[in-house]
Amino acid sequence: LERALKKIDVIRLLLGKQIQNLPVAHPVQAFAPANIALCKYWGKRERELNLPQTSSLSISLGEKGATTQLAVIEAEADVVFLNDVPVPANTEFYRRLVAFLDLFRNKYYFKVTISSNLPIAAGLATSASGFAAVVLALNKLFQWQVPKETLSIFARLGSGSAARSITTGFVEWQAGRLSDGFDSYAVALPLRWETLCVGLLIFNQAAKKIGSRDAMQQTVATSPFYAAWPALVASDLEQLKIAIMDKNLSKMGFIAESNALAMHATMQAARPAIIYSEPATISAMQQIWQMREAGINVFFTQDAGPNLKLLFEESALLDVLQFFSKLEIVRPFSS
Amino acid sequence: LERALKKIDVIRLLLGKQIQNLPVAHPVQAFAPANIALCKYWGKRERELNLPQTSSLSISLGEKGATTQLAVIEAEADVVFLNDVPVPANTEFYRRLVAFLDLFRNKYYFKVTISSNLPIAAGLATSASGFAAVVLALNKLFQWQVPKETLSIFARLGSGSAARSITTGFVEWQAGRLSDGFDSYAVALPLRWETLCVGLLIFNQAAKKIGSRDAMQQTVATSPFYAAWPALVASDLEQLKIAIMDKNLSKMGFIAESNALAMHATMQAARPAIIYSEPATISAMQQIWQMREAGINVFFTQDAGPNLKLLFEESALLDVLQFFSKLEIVRPFSS
Repeated sequence: LERALKKIDVIRLLLGKQIQNLPVAHPVQAFAPANIALCKYWGKRERELNLPQTSSLSISLGEKGATTQLAVIEAEADVVFLNDVPVPANTEFYRRLVAFLDLFRNKYYFKVTISSNLPIAAGLATSASGFAAVVLALNKLFQWQVPKETLSIFARLGSGSAARSITTGFVEWQAGRLSDGFDSYAVALPLRWETLCVGLLIFNQAAKKIGSRDAMQQTVATSPFYAAWPALVASDLEQLKIAIMDKNLSKMGFIAESNALAMHATMQAARPAIIYSEPATISAMQQIWQMREAGINVFFTQDAGPNLKLLFEESALLDVLQFFSKLEIVRPFSS
Repeated sequence: LERALKKIDVIRLLLGKQIQNLPVAHPVQAFAPANIALCKYWGKRERELNLPQTSSLSISLGEKGATTQLAVIEAEADVVFLNDVPVPANTEFYRRLVAFLDLFRNKYYFKVTISSNLPIAAGLATSASGFAAVVLALNKLFQWQVPKETLSIFARLGSGSAARSITTGFVEWQAGRLSDGFDSYAVALPLRWETLCVGLLIFNQAAKKIGSRDAMQQTVATSPFYAAWPALVASDLEQLKIAIMDKNLSKMGFIAESNALAMHATMQAARPAIIYSEPATISAMQQIWQMREAGINVFFTQDAGPNLKLLFEESALLDVLQFFSKLEIVRPFSS
């Protein structure tokens, strides 16, 4: 029997001698976008390496995401700032980040400055952009000569969906089959969709009661409907890629919306049930369905939180803003 | 190949010569309770005879339900009143009721007076109590000498869950296996639970956008999770009966609540999705979960509508009323 690989083994295998690289002399900075899954990642086949049960597909949020600065410091521990606030060493956030940095460092300690222009832990994929930005910054700091796929794998070791935040536009995270996860990384779809808009409908910026890791695990362990999820994703993913290549918003939106509702259905059937929707969530869903009946082509998706993300084209922007005046608009292909 | 049985064939086989019985000379009246399923009926194996995919289990609502008066009249058509209002012949309600009466009559026409003390078509099982009360009234009018199981089968031909409203207390509707449905009828559990309370939490008395028949059919046809529903029901039903025989409210309530949420999860994953919950529904669920965290032993169930039905014992009544002051309280075993 082969010994199961640990994160550190994966990194050593992929970096080889480069793990000895010296850091550049100056601080480095990197940005990674948040990403919104249109076909969701929900459930792991292996927890140590964050290997997913299924492939997934997301759209990166352009300039919305996390920026990370890394500087080597003379100290006995890392110093971490999040949105200009020092992060105490006894927090889960600090521990998780430092454990991740431990995988890559030799003897160095860092000052890590992360700033996010999205609400933290409100189901807006900030941990995805955060870990991806840390990996991109490490790559600059140590000047690894590795392909993008390797950076995606490193980001996955921090947080599954961070694998998709290494690149921009439409991104497929291929589940892969290997137990070392060397084939489980993100690939960008060769396509720009200039008129596409994503609207962030934020009801609640508070951190979630149950994090997505725990919710995922509880669903896989107790939901009677989880067994049907992988086949559903396989079918949705295929249809979704066709819809995207055709730039068919109605098809893309319907699949994304249905896929999100199905993911939440797997959670609702878990025992005990997990329901992220709040009254405002349901109210907005009803509003969106009424808008569609009135001919406005807008769809939603929902992650592990109460907020919704709207999908529509520039031609519907004014109509959409009439109903959701506080919507934060992102144009994923604007730059 | 055997010819599929029609409703009329089932009735002729079960009534035999009694289908020729003369009506008694005076008007008759019968009451049937509404029932709330604790393990839901969701999906048919055969649509003509309303044969269910699975067994189900309900609690009858005591004095809440429908009363039906039947009188033979000299006329060319039935005359129907619902809650003292004449029902026009061009309505779905009239057509469905008359088609049902057609199955049992020779040459007679009826004045049918139905009164319900529950809101119509708001997911409060009024069609169940309505059809059951019609069958009980027909039984009085024609003085059939048939067992209760036969009356349950007749009620099922009108509306599936009406099979359970023929009797009181805890009622199991056995799915049966026969294609004629002669083994698909309700059986009462031999048990009284005097302290049990059911609370009706009614947010919206408006009729539903999509009826439960259509919702059921759309779910069976399109939900990727429906395939897992029958096995879930089999397991829930077994656990539920044990919890009821033990008068263990926590266990009974948890299974009932989880089963209802799972049923709604099958619908949410249908395409297009069916969501009966409204903002007030989610808000009440959150309230109930908070009450449980505070030690108040109360659970909910939800049918094909936004309203919730609460399950608790008399000892929790004052606590429950403090949070839901307009709750309508039913004691299923009070009389």
